[in-house]
Amino acid sequence: MKRTFWTALALTAALIMTSQVTADQGANAMTERTPVILINPFSVPEGKVEEAISFWEAGRDFLAQQPGYISTKLHRAITPDAQYQLINVAEWESIEQFKAATTKMQALPDLPRVDGVTYGPALYDVIRN
Amino acid sequence: MKRTFWTALALTAALIMTSQVTADQGANAMTERTPVILINPFSVPEGKVEEAISFWEAGRDFLAQQPGYISTKLHRAITPDAQYQLINVAEWESIEQFKAATTKMQALPDLPRVDGVTYGPALYDVIRN
Repeated sequence: MKRTFWTALALTAALIMTSQVTADQGANAMTERTPVILINPFSVPEGKVEEAISFWEAGRDFLAQQPGYISTKLHRAITPDAQYQLINVAEWESIEQFKAATTKMQALPDLPRVDGVTYGPALYDVIRN
Repeated sequence: MKRTFWTALALTAALIMTSQVTADQGANAMTERTPVILINPFSVPEGKVEEAISFWEAGRDFLAQQPGYISTKLHRAITPDAQYQLINVAEWESIEQFKAATTKMQALPDLPRVDGVTYGPALYDVIRN
């Protein structure tokens, strides 16, 4: 009887894990199943937008190689008076993978910097459509 | 001969118009074919997030009925210390249609307001992936 209970429990656990892997389309079943969204608005001094885009591209090239990266979109304001000239919206498989990747990136010695460019990344869930 | 020329021209014009409408998925062929992106970060005082979401929903319900609306996603920060607790990212068929829709919305007498909630909408193009 005891054996049957544990067998049933193991089978249930295996089924849950299998369905999670399917929902994740192959991603680590221990992480969240819905992507976490990074939104990073950039304040860019006048005349520095092209330089800031190159800075962003260098970061993107590194992050796109890290585990958990899904996709990214860099948005450029259509008017020069917008508070944020650039806003990045990216998808990551989990908070932990995003944090690991950015920690690794910040330790790079040769990442370019742009004077006067500031940014404020934060993580989000999509709650309404 | 003259008749044949005009018939050919009319057919060519009809073909061009048909292919444009297909590319726009039925939208007005005179507007831009790439969606314009609205990004609207909301600063929300502590304890007011649920109220701000209801405010956003009322606006979304109105805007989703207007010409040019494509889609929207409301993002909620996963930590309470994020500068913007809510960020809306929406797609519109054209700048003109977005502006017409928001002008119409601002003229509504019964749109709810939430004390202390501020927001800064701006329009963007996606320039990098």
